[in-house]
Amino acid sequence: MQVYETIRAKRAIRKFTDEPLPEDAVETILNAGRLAQSAKNTQPWHFIAIRNRDTLEALSKLGHFAGHLAGAAMGVAILTPPPEQRFSIMFDAGQAAAYMQLAAWELGIGSCLATIYEPEQARQLLGFPDEWHIRIAISFGYAHFEEDVDRPPRKTGRREFDNVIHWDKW
Amino acid sequence: MQVYETIRAKRAIRKFTDEPLPEDAVETILNAGRLAQSAKNTQPWHFIAIRNRDTLEALSKLGHFAGHLAGAAMGVAILTPPPEQRFSIMFDAGQAAAYMQLAAWELGIGSCLATIYEPEQARQLLGFPDEWHIRIAISFGYAHFEEDVDRPPRKTGRREFDNVIHWDKW
Repeated sequence: MQVYETIRAKRAIRKFTDEPLPEDAVETILNAGRLAQSAKNTQPWHFIAIRNRDTLEALSKLGHFAGHLAGAAMGVAILTPPPEQRFSIMFDAGQAAAYMQLAAWELGIGSCLATIYEPEQARQLLGFPDEWHIRIAISFGYAHFEEDVDRPPRKTGRREFDNVIHWDKW
Repeated sequence: MQVYETIRAKRAIRKFTDEPLPEDAVETILNAGRLAQSAKNTQPWHFIAIRNRDTLEALSKLGHFAGHLAGAAMGVAILTPPPEQRFSIMFDAGQAAAYMQLAAWELGIGSCLATIYEPEQARQLLGFPDEWHIRIAISFGYAHFEEDVDRPPRKTGRREFDNVIHWDKW
């Protein structure tokens, strides 16, 4: 059960080594997102893969708790149509992000989501057109602290099964 | 590369056999969703796992192209806070859905998303409270047609890499 094991074992990694990602890992991660399903196969996304250090540092200042982008081996900016246009846009973006992060973890590469609170500044920085919008970017890289990779889940980390799952009816 | 292989190989399955899902598979699928990450760990979801045939048939009539729910071994209704409240709600629901569907595929279980266009009728049917909302349900089950599992991706199924990925800037 490699997939489930990856889901179970994945931890958010916020501090990365300086080691760059191999090209084939970069390609696998980006392809994982590209291959994600989406409502009516609209594929409502572009991905900007960022390895330029200045760009990563600038992007890291455009969100709260987005500082981890500054030290990432690669950041991936997820661009979508206006999120408020239909609920499926961010749902689909979430699927693509999950695919990328799980594919990365399997390759020993950690990741963390960042919310971009200054989307217009990010637009200036990354140069994307008006019809595309950014809310989320993902940091990828090798974990700086080995203990971040192996840390056990917090006891209070997820709600209990019976608090989340209902059978046939609420 | 089991995770990436699962991502690459997964197909939407809309027609299922009558075979029920083993209890441990049901638990694995639901746990995969439960363990998904979410913005500030809000876990903005409840999942209703539906195996009652009458309920599945009724739910299948509450969306376009949701007919596959009628024949599913299990349907999972994803309930969230109001989707328009913040963009991260449906993004997080998308991550949880992706986890469940990938975990299922690893177990040889197919799935398909359904959009629920009659959320208030679904609320009546499933009996969940006013503060929770439904937009998406997922069908799970063993594929009725073996060729659905193995079918090659359509040539036009996903946009080309260079059409999706940008390097450092748009």
